[in-house]
Amino acid sequence: MSKSIESAAANGRITLVGAGPGDADLLTLRAIKRLQAADVVLYDDLAGEGFMAYLDPNAEMVAVGKRAGHPSPRQDEVSRLAISYALRGKHVVRLKAGDPTLFARADEELRAAREAGIAVEIVPGITTATAAAATIGASLTKRGVARRVQFVTGHDVDGRLPRDLDLAALADATATTCVYMGKATFPALVAQLIARGLSAATPAVMVESLGSEATNVQRGSVSELAARLTADRPAGPCMILYGAALEEG
Amino acid sequence: MSKSIESAAANGRITLVGAGPGDADLLTLRAIKRLQAADVVLYDDLAGEGFMAYLDPNAEMVAVGKRAGHPSPRQDEVSRLAISYALRGKHVVRLKAGDPTLFARADEELRAAREAGIAVEIVPGITTATAAAATIGASLTKRGVARRVQFVTGHDVDGRLPRDLDLAALADATATTCVYMGKATFPALVAQLIARGLSAATPAVMVESLGSEATNVQRGSVSELAARLTADRPAGPCMILYGAALEEG
Repeated sequence: MSKSIESAAANGRITLVGAGPGDADLLTLRAIKRLQAADVVLYDDLAGEGFMAYLDPNAEMVAVGKRAGHPSPRQDEVSRLAISYALRGKHVVRLKAGDPTLFARADEELRAAREAGIAVEIVPGITTATAAAATIGASLTKRGVARRVQFVTGHDVDGRLPRDLDLAALADATATTCVYMGKATFPALVAQLIARGLSAATPAVMVESLGSEATNVQRGSVSELAARLTADRPAGPCMILYGAALEEG
Repeated sequence: MSKSIESAAANGRITLVGAGPGDADLLTLRAIKRLQAADVVLYDDLAGEGFMAYLDPNAEMVAVGKRAGHPSPRQDEVSRLAISYALRGKHVVRLKAGDPTLFARADEELRAAREAGIAVEIVPGITTATAAAATIGASLTKRGVARRVQFVTGHDVDGRLPRDLDLAALADATATTCVYMGKATFPALVAQLIARGLSAATPAVMVESLGSEATNVQRGSVSELAARLTADRPAGPCMILYGAALEEG
């Protein structure tokens, strides 16, 4: 490596920034500072558009977004792209919907960057589960009712329900369970959980298109929600919460 | 109720605002907007002091904070105080460390406010678990390694390990477990988890005093971390993470 490439690489860096659930005012001040200082922003489709207000007009914008059901760049191509900009001395902001450490495949981007000798920082973001809880005005924990909160993905590499889910842990109605990307597979999950002893009457809430004007909240039991999802697949991304803590009143 | 009290109450409202892990720049824009519009702020000791920069100089500041080991106002007194201000037409911001929907007893404050007919809004905040993950540069989820993330409290009403923990769920090393307020009870928890089959070598990280200049990161196996905590109790608040996803490299 020549001296000049080495020094460019020394200035280049990658910041994984959590964009939160979509509302621009749920960005943190630190996220905004990093966006303002970015030379290049690689952004997810789901990251919302409000963040654009904070960018340097000279910053390069690259959509690398994943949106369920549409083709998107492969994860290793996104990592390679971020690294190639950083090796040219750029400050690359990789803007991810939600929080980068939850279901965002940050581990792969972190590993690739470190292998390339690039400094990486993570800026946490509001994750969809707590934003959904705030939207519906409910606490995910509840003294004497729900003291464990768990986040799972309903969506495996192949779009199906992951095969290695800990069903016993997920069938515990005294936990509050937050299912990311679960609208397609929730009916299958609920069938398995009921077979494992979860009451079909366990309260559940689905929040579709959180952080947009189209936010749609559906309440019911897990089995009612599963039936509705079987009948009619919502268009927007969905967060599904279930457990005793979601009892209304 | 007289007409004038009714109309004061109609303007009064309570906003539960997540302050995040302590760093003022991890406040969201929405949190800042609510702080700027607050007549009264009831704040936790753990909420950090950076938020004060955003307050109206005429706002009334009331410390109602909980800090482990010190006496603090009872939860129902905090709720009563918030309601009494709101009934006088004030916009009350109840500023909570982390996220209001996670281990913050928001359910009790929500219920009390609703019973009093007061409008309540929740503004989500960065929770300590994801801030800790960002600080150590690790993803809590990892494809093929950890797809379930769970948050538990290590601290019951009486300061002991909760008796009704789902030990099987917590002994799953393929989940990433985030233990809030666990520094006193983690050794007892680890003993129970190892008896349930968790490997003593499961990687763990403790982040003490996150969001302050005194942040201290300790790595080791769950049993090493338990031994260190038995020998020497850290002074600051601690977030403990364990699970296969925390393997370094």
